[in-house]
Amino acid sequence: VHVDELAALLPPGAVLTDPASVAAYRHDWARDPAAETPAAVVRARSTADVSTVLRWACARAVPVVPRGAGSSLSGGASGVAGGITLSLELMREVTVDPANRLVVAQPGAITADVKAAAAEHGLWYPPDPSSFELSSIGGNVATNAGGLCCVKYGVTADYVLGAEVVLADGTVVRLGGATVKDVAGLPLLKLFVGSEGILGVITEVTLRLLPPVTTSATTVAVFHSVAAAAEAVVAITRRIRPSVVELMDHTTINAVEDAFRMGLDRQSGALVILRSDAPGDAAAAETAVIEAECRAQGAEELYTTTDPDEGDAFMHARRSALPALERLGPLLIEDVGVPLPALPALVAGIGDIAEARATRIALMAHAGDGNTHPVIVHEAGNEDARTRALLAFDDVMALAIGLGGTITGEHGVGRLKASWLSRQLGDDVVLLTKRVKDALDPTGVLNPGVLLR
Amino acid sequence: VHVDELAALLPPGAVLTDPASVAAYRHDWARDPAAETPAAVVRARSTADVSTVLRWACARAVPVVPRGAGSSLSGGASGVAGGITLSLELMREVTVDPANRLVVAQPGAITADVKAAAAEHGLWYPPDPSSFELSSIGGNVATNAGGLCCVKYGVTADYVLGAEVVLADGTVVRLGGATVKDVAGLPLLKLFVGSEGILGVITEVTLRLLPPVTTSATTVAVFHSVAAAAEAVVAITRRIRPSVVELMDHTTINAVEDAFRMGLDRQSGALVILRSDAPGDAAAAETAVIEAECRAQGAEELYTTTDPDEGDAFMHARRSALPALERLGPLLIEDVGVPLPALPALVAGIGDIAEARATRIALMAHAGDGNTHPVIVHEAGNEDARTRALLAFDDVMALAIGLGGTITGEHGVGRLKASWLSRQLGDDVVLLTKRVKDALDPTGVLNPGVLLR
Repeated sequence: VHVDELAALLPPGAVLTDPASVAAYRHDWARDPAAETPAAVVRARSTADVSTVLRWACARAVPVVPRGAGSSLSGGASGVAGGITLSLELMREVTVDPANRLVVAQPGAITADVKAAAAEHGLWYPPDPSSFELSSIGGNVATNAGGLCCVKYGVTADYVLGAEVVLADGTVVRLGGATVKDVAGLPLLKLFVGSEGILGVITEVTLRLLPPVTTSATTVAVFHSVAAAAEAVVAITRRIRPSVVELMDHTTINAVEDAFRMGLDRQSGALVILRSDAPGDAAAAETAVIEAECRAQGAEELYTTTDPDEGDAFMHARRSALPALERLGPLLIEDVGVPLPALPALVAGIGDIAEARATRIALMAHAGDGNTHPVIVHEAGNEDARTRALLAFDDVMALAIGLGGTITGEHGVGRLKASWLSRQLGDDVVLLTKRVKDALDPTGVLNPGVLLR
Repeated sequence: VHVDELAALLPPGAVLTDPASVAAYRHDWARDPAAETPAAVVRARSTADVSTVLRWACARAVPVVPRGAGSSLSGGASGVAGGITLSLELMREVTVDPANRLVVAQPGAITADVKAAAAEHGLWYPPDPSSFELSSIGGNVATNAGGLCCVKYGVTADYVLGAEVVLADGTVVRLGGATVKDVAGLPLLKLFVGSEGILGVITEVTLRLLPPVTTSATTVAVFHSVAAAAEAVVAITRRIRPSVVELMDHTTINAVEDAFRMGLDRQSGALVILRSDAPGDAAAAETAVIEAECRAQGAEELYTTTDPDEGDAFMHARRSALPALERLGPLLIEDVGVPLPALPALVAGIGDIAEARATRIALMAHAGDGNTHPVIVHEAGNEDARTRALLAFDDVMALAIGLGGTITGEHGVGRLKASWLSRQLGDDVVLLTKRVKDALDPTGVLNPGVLLR
């Protein structure tokens, strides 16, 4: 790879090739041992930089891995040997347009900063992946990130009004814009949201904002088992739309307690956190439904607070689950989802897999939309334990597919699950995917190995 | 075209070639004089029929025009000489799955029937294009249809969870399904929603349903001018999210009165109908905001009712606008949209165009999301009047593009506006569109002339 040639086309300092720098871009948060060290890292400062990199890479068939904050949990931003990792981390401008109720952001902006900028204007950007304080908005758009609010407010794709995208050959296109309802042309904007960097590099996004909503009530329900908790979730969401429906199992609760001492009940089999942001007296009505259905499913304890700080503390506990579990050992983080009525079968099956593979699986879930994160904890340095964990990882995906579900609800396919995609989608859909990929990136330079093998 | 050959591959009676039958499929509701009479009409009864037609047509490069109820206002289903019009009107099964809160429908099902089937199970399918009692759900999905509820509940695309699609070569693929959160693979499902039949034929859709919402209050505000009404809409939607924000101008109000005697104020310059479906006491709070902002913009009259039948009567008046205007003469129906703050400039500009072209333009609008339907009324048999109307039609699109808006908010590009697409999107995006089209339909058999010239 003639990196010097590329460096000459870019502003001074944009290209990093020293061993320490490129090594730092080998892994993303998936910590995939198979990740490779890129030949160079380009830290783009403008759309023009991105276009230059792609024009050059396309002409020379050099792989390009687009990368935001590197927080992918599926290996979507891990390095490729001989390739360029194209970091957008320095492109982080955020501009709120209150009259149009939208925000325009560069891809490297941290999602929390986008949310904060909107809030300064009394507006709300709903999507809230657990990683929102660390992940980039460009990565959120590239993976169609979910989060806790999805159950009522939808996923990232539901908020993307427009984007600037650099295509594989360096062409810059603008898709969508400030018009809320617009069906002119093919829905190409939608094609790029969730395309995991294999069709183009997003260099700017326009996001719809909402008037802020106040959370009125937070309910914490304690169950003797994950199964009972899952049944309660199904029963509640059949009747109402809470703004949050999160689940943690016994292992997760205790990991959070060990790490952060939040005062959760260590004896609980499972805990469900539910919130209502219905306006006025409607919140009390929703909370009544939540409490009644939890009781009907045998909740051992029910606690509702209307104090926002107290409610936020429970949300913080839920958001702390992954860092807390990381203290237990190396993790394999699943992201499987199922149609909601299949949630009890999914959690039961996950328990069976843990037993059969003699491995520990902690469970946390955006339960209200059937999206679960079984977290397989194994022992560092124990090859046998790692093998069993990997087998369990596959078992969980097979289980989800068997229940009519998905191998990934919000993290993306990335490199970790690319070999599984055809098992969920079928060969015809994978072929169709390849036809679209080949049409937009005939040289195959964009994020090779991601989504398609 | 060897229609006999095709007929031999299909069940008896599926292929119509008699002159009266094919003539009936020449036009859709756009009544485009340039529409052509197809060589044959196939009324498919199954996905297998659709696949057979496409496999045959692809091999012989015969154009295929997919058609639901034929209610396109943009010529999306008008006939092509020498081609096959593939009607889905006989495929109209609808099955509600209450546990998964979704409905599975064949494409020829009328949208009203889908809504009614959901309602039988106590569930709600929100999208409500004005044509919902006549248009097909397949057509709604193919055009990503909007309607009155979009301002709060989004467009058709927001409800499509899955689809079965027959590709140009006859391959049948299933995209998406019952899992609410699913990011496995490229968002191909989204690519087909709004693709106007140029990428594939939708043979089944899976749609998300919501718990029903009760409209609590309907407010009708009378303004001396469309400009003042538009300003009120901008002010209101900056603060809250009403469930309906519809606008009718003086001409439209009087056409409705002439046709249906609904008791609207014939002296009004413009009328805005707003609804709140906020739960409990929140509806009264929303109505207070609506009334205050209307007053601030000089509303001459304000009337709020909490009686659902009375509220529905106003909605019925709004929905009657197009049939009422049809009595005035031949119509050219626009569908332009702008970013919301540009709505007052759009309505002012439309008034200027009417004056400059000495033509009558009635205005109705899904004002809350900046989507307007200027309806250009001309005189039957008067060539000069028709020419001026056509010039005004183009002027309105140019105006919308100049304001950062769109030539179509919900009706689709169809054949009528295909020559305008590059003016809105730019040549690079049209080229990208062609690359996707060529990848999925290399022979170009699917709905030629629609969207792309």
